Amino acid sequence: MTQNIDFRLATLGDLDSIVEMLNDDLLGSQRERYEQPLPDSYLQAFHAITNDPNNELIVACMGYEIIGVQQITFTPYLTYQGGWRATIEGVRTSSLHRGKGIGTQLIQWAISRAKDRGCHLVQLTTDKKRQDALRFYEQLGFAASHEGLKLKL
Amino acid sequence: MTQNIDFRLATLGDLDSIVEMLNDDLLGSQRERYEQPLPDSYLQAFHAITNDPNNELIVACMGYEIIGVQQITFTPYLTYQGGWRATIEGVRTSSLHRGKGIGTQLIQWAISRAKDRGCHLVQLTTDKKRQDALRFYEQLGFAASHEGLKLKL
Repeated sequence: MTQNIDFRLATLGDLDSIVEMLNDDLLGSQRERYEQPLPDSYLQAFHAITNDPNNELIVACMGYEIIGVQQITFTPYLTYQGGWRATIEGVRTSSLHRGKGIGTQLIQWAISRAKDRGCHLVQLTTDKKRQDALRFYEQLGFAASHEGLKLKL
Repeated sequence: MTQNIDFRLATLGDLDSIVEMLNDDLLGSQRERYEQPLPDSYLQAFHAITNDPNNELIVACMGYEIIGVQQITFTPYLTYQGGWRATIEGVRTSSLHRGKGIGTQLIQWAISRAKDRGCHLVQLTTDKKRQDALRFYEQLGFAASHEGLKLKL
């Protein structure tokens, strides 16, 4: 039996499930704090994201269950004759539902949304330690044309 | 004689000089349109950037001359316990003033500004065709830990 997956903006009631997914990840488990009550920093970030018209926190749902998440940031730039870009970050799927193509559907949804918003480019960075991720994104049409540089403060 | 370099938010009067710099670049010259009057898309993007409290278009000035530019985007994320990031994009220096360390000062200014805004990370992507850029950013402390993936729409 195939269940439909719906995509929608996250609400505050989804935050616990989202942080659980962020924490249930090889790299995420080293840097998140999934505990009850949730650290206040997550709530503050949630409100900052959802109050910003250029940020969208998107959840994938199967019935009442949250099975995936991603954040899309829309940014106006002067480069490319004043073109808008969409940046995807924090893509995660529930470990109970891996291998079902949910990640693919999330990214395809983001690409479609980026077109609706008039973006000329979709971009993301992926940690070189995530060996499968690069192939996954290349299969979806992304080109690894850039180095992704990070400086921790 | 060493002249001081000042950094400030760009104003509309700087836009012509900024687009001239974006165009006076190996890759930029293939994708920008520096002509008089400036294409309206640059003005629209300028207003979208300067009206957004999470975007700052910064110019480097020597006296009345605009000699460098960069855009800094501040983004709230749920990852890293709800941490903010600063993303640097569109870094250019005037071809008349290359080799004077202006790029270094621009990036150092952005890092300082990111700290002031409470960011835990500064990030950027650089085209793998820009062979000198990677070393430049690594010397400033950035780690090329990620692949930078782009999908043109």
